[in-house]
Amino acid sequence: MNKINVAILGFGTVGQGVVKILQKNADQWVKKCNAEIEVKKVLVKNTQKEREVKLPSGVMTTDWQEIVNDPEINVIIELMGGIEPTRSYILEALQKGKHIVTANKDLLAEHGEELLSTCELADRDLYFEASVGGGIPIINPLKQSLLANNIEKVIGIVNGTTNFILTKMTNEGKNFADALQEAQQLGYAEADPTSDVEGLDAARKMAILASIAFHTRVTFNDVYVEGISKISPEDLEYAHSLGYTIKLLGISSFEDDQVEVRVHPALIPLEHPLANVNDSFNAIFVKGDAVGETMFYGRGAGQMPTASAVVGDLIAVVKDINTNSISSSCTCYETKKIKPMDEVKTNYFLRLQVLDEPGVLANIASIFGAHGVSLASVVQKGCTENVAELVVITHKVREKDIQDSLEIIRKLTITKEIVNLIRVEGME
Amino acid sequence: MNKINVAILGFGTVGQGVVKILQKNADQWVKKCNAEIEVKKVLVKNTQKEREVKLPSGVMTTDWQEIVNDPEINVIIELMGGIEPTRSYILEALQKGKHIVTANKDLLAEHGEELLSTCELADRDLYFEASVGGGIPIINPLKQSLLANNIEKVIGIVNGTTNFILTKMTNEGKNFADALQEAQQLGYAEADPTSDVEGLDAARKMAILASIAFHTRVTFNDVYVEGISKISPEDLEYAHSLGYTIKLLGISSFEDDQVEVRVHPALIPLEHPLANVNDSFNAIFVKGDAVGETMFYGRGAGQMPTASAVVGDLIAVVKDINTNSISSSCTCYETKKIKPMDEVKTNYFLRLQVLDEPGVLANIASIFGAHGVSLASVVQKGCTENVAELVVITHKVREKDIQDSLEIIRKLTITKEIVNLIRVEGME
Repeated sequence: MNKINVAILGFGTVGQGVVKILQKNADQWVKKCNAEIEVKKVLVKNTQKEREVKLPSGVMTTDWQEIVNDPEINVIIELMGGIEPTRSYILEALQKGKHIVTANKDLLAEHGEELLSTCELADRDLYFEASVGGGIPIINPLKQSLLANNIEKVIGIVNGTTNFILTKMTNEGKNFADALQEAQQLGYAEADPTSDVEGLDAARKMAILASIAFHTRVTFNDVYVEGISKISPEDLEYAHSLGYTIKLLGISSFEDDQVEVRVHPALIPLEHPLANVNDSFNAIFVKGDAVGETMFYGRGAGQMPTASAVVGDLIAVVKDINTNSISSSCTCYETKKIKPMDEVKTNYFLRLQVLDEPGVLANIASIFGAHGVSLASVVQKGCTENVAELVVITHKVREKDIQDSLEIIRKLTITKEIVNLIRVEGME
Repeated sequence: MNKINVAILGFGTVGQGVVKILQKNADQWVKKCNAEIEVKKVLVKNTQKEREVKLPSGVMTTDWQEIVNDPEINVIIELMGGIEPTRSYILEALQKGKHIVTANKDLLAEHGEELLSTCELADRDLYFEASVGGGIPIINPLKQSLLANNIEKVIGIVNGTTNFILTKMTNEGKNFADALQEAQQLGYAEADPTSDVEGLDAARKMAILASIAFHTRVTFNDVYVEGISKISPEDLEYAHSLGYTIKLLGISSFEDDQVEVRVHPALIPLEHPLANVNDSFNAIFVKGDAVGETMFYGRGAGQMPTASAVVGDLIAVVKDINTNSISSSCTCYETKKIKPMDEVKTNYFLRLQVLDEPGVLANIASIFGAHGVSLASVVQKGCTENVAELVVITHKVREKDIQDSLEIIRKLTITKEIVNLIRVEGME
């Protein structure tokens, strides 16, 4: 029976969660993976800091060399986050024959190709289930059980913070700032919420998912990103009255021989399986040519859900070590083009305030018409004495065409304000 | 590069779906699994029958010996169904060194232990993702990504036919017989619908899921089963007015050192993730001590979804052949007791008709009280002149205690009829 020696880089929330799981089920690991698992080293900045989870003395170290040069350590669990020195550490560890488990979406979304090709040369595993959707099994199912499919579309609610904020805004009529503040008070959002709120975190996750789903390398820079800070309670009210809710969606698809990948708020029909994914829950909806529609739902963050995915990956590594095989190889065996955002076709929800005069609607409609933007529905509501609010939903049109029309409409003297433009997903 | 020769046993809907997938993506298999895959033989009863999918001449055969004695055939995909001769064929094939992929829930739920121990002796793979939840990846995620967890509960909507019927009854107020007839007309239910409607199909799937979730052998006979034929539109109306819907649930949990496993209709709160799983969709809700609540959703049956899971398993076998390893071993490394149904504790929804007389409610309440059955809510409705309908929801009580109380209540002269007793799941 193998003895597996593990080193954990970083001992924050998730690292301590991993040790909790390993300690709790200590008697089961031998049964579960036919090997003994020991956490031999944990890399920290400060060994003296008070922590919830206790380790035997001598396990914590501040010295990376002590870990990477220990030939007994077979597996590195990387939970430091960030790009450097993490990237260098992982590359060095692979070259020294260690297998890697990581939850680092930032690193994978930017340097995935380098990491995976280094793995291949080193004949070592790199697993990263925890990098997307926390504890939800999504990367391994996409790489294995669903591999018979040509994946057509992946739509994810992959950021719990923004989903919590939008749920609060929807259910309690709060505005964005108040809902964000509540999320911060509850620990769902960080003091600097930019990465979550502006969609950057979701974009990194979508880069990873799209790479796997479409077998082509997609990086963070390929993803079009818009956050949720412009969404107002009024948008949510209009959406609901039309049979939709608003979610921050990651949308990736393969069409016209190009990969589309974008993160932005979107209206989604209330009967769509993603519409009922609330609070800090995540879900990833996958459509394949054989399997049809599937969805994977659960906790997208948090100590124990993330640790669950990390330890699941650790067991996969241990099984590979037992059988002397590598199961985690890169699946980006094609090179597909990324569709420019201008070329993306979708439906749009548009709110604009115009002077309440005869001929205004005709004027605007003719500008849309000239750009090939056709309207599925228009609702007009009197706002104040001489300003009317128009709520428009378009048929499927090209992003560039709607942006060009709005450029013109914005400059009309009859236009008071283009209040919001939100894409619509899942409209037939 | 390996050449993998596959034989398919049975060439019905799913078998043809498998060949469709293999033909459609012919150029991709080498990239996806670094091997060439060929369907060398297909076992049928009648080679002359007209079929949608065409095979090269010489592939179809009626002779099992021709397949099992062909040393070039590495993998058998078993889609014949039923217990015999399927069981003997699989055992023989394993002994002759062939790997197995199967969708046969009947066989696994009754003879899983024999098949998996034969695999171990023969050092061969047996994968069966398609046996539960059609195309939904659930067995592999439970065996891999979620393995770090102690699973606490698995609740599944694992039969599409009954979910379709209940959805029709809920949304259109149809009675059971009419909804069943529609399901039969649309091909969702068979001419003899017993196996679906009486919960037997779901029970087989729950035996498989419980075996994996709790690492102990659970067979079909261990599962308590009740079907949906007694559910009426009135039950659904009452349920909705109380904030619930009714689904045929497979429920398995580990508590008090015993495994509970049962299939029956149950009220479930409208806000539960399973409540919105409608039509012929399936979903499996898994609660683990680390990951918390997760759910897996998709098409639980049909040609292409099932074929998706089968081909996913085939790729897993091919990867194992490539690396000369076995990844599909049995995970039932413990022996846990099955809780007798009498000892199960849950909430109950009870409808009974009683004479509308003073003291009746007190009389019934005192019988419940004597058996330790405490009531969470009681609604009384006048039905006809002198008969009242009582709708009761209980706190968590033991199955035996509620059954014993009803035995006594049934015999009271004031009791006209015990209309229905339905368990409640997910009540706090």
